[in-house]
Amino acid sequence: MRITRYTDYSLRVLLFVALKDKQISTIGEIADAYGISKNHLRKVVHELSVKGYLMANRGKNGGMYLKGRPEDINIGVLVRDLEPDLEIVECFGDGQGCVLTPACDLKKAFHNALQAFFDCLEKYTLADLLPAENRPQMVRLLGMPSLFSPG
Amino acid sequence: MRITRYTDYSLRVLLFVALKDKQISTIGEIADAYGISKNHLRKVVHELSVKGYLMANRGKNGGMYLKGRPEDINIGVLVRDLEPDLEIVECFGDGQGCVLTPACDLKKAFHNALQAFFDCLEKYTLADLLPAENRPQMVRLLGMPSLFSPG
Repeated sequence: MRITRYTDYSLRVLLFVALKDKQISTIGEIADAYGISKNHLRKVVHELSVKGYLMANRGKNGGMYLKGRPEDINIGVLVRDLEPDLEIVECFGDGQGCVLTPACDLKKAFHNALQAFFDCLEKYTLADLLPAENRPQMVRLLGMPSLFSPG
Repeated sequence: MRITRYTDYSLRVLLFVALKDKQISTIGEIADAYGISKNHLRKVVHELSVKGYLMANRGKNGGMYLKGRPEDINIGVLVRDLEPDLEIVECFGDGQGCVLTPACDLKKAFHNALQAFFDCLEKYTLADLLPAENRPQMVRLLGMPSLFSPG
């Protein structure tokens, strides 16, 4: 049971971009910071832009920044929006997969469990994942020394 | 985000076997009832037997029945036991995947969400998924007419 790599990378991009705040971020620096491929990131950034999370410009002087405020991006809503497949069991689909579906309470059990999962994630916004006390270490880990230079 | 087919099939096998109660079940009839391959089921039944959920005998007159009582098989504990990968995000692993892991609260958010998911599944036992009012329909859907014949 895993979220997709696409959702994982999307979360990383949004954390990076939110940390840089008003400064523009590029695919190159995000790829370098996390050690992931630019090609994967291009797709991720494009879709985050289409979905309204990022303002992104292509081209040589292109880059991106967060479209809204980190406190307005709910992590539960975001993950629901990004995950392409939330049919945690086959019977969440059209029910053609399992002959037992019309009389089986397993579907209800998994439905409730998935709801509890998202209820929990919905307690967090992107801002909650970037608390002031973590920011200096996050910036250092991502190689953004200029942001929090003393003075 | 999905459970594996292996966990899915395991749940179906346990429901079938629990419905037949003291009557022995065979891989052939389970395969026929659900329309899934015997080869997949052999592996599933073998592992359920190794893990202590089933008593299974191989061979021409082989078959299986539930080792314990349906009310003692907790669905949350069962799914945790069966799922080979509960690293819902990469940072649940050895933390080598993402440079941000040491300072990132996303791991905590997903950890809490996964806990909420299993807390919910743990409210159900196998017996809860086989309530008396559903049994006649389940038996019919699985093609076990002899079990609940009138009189």
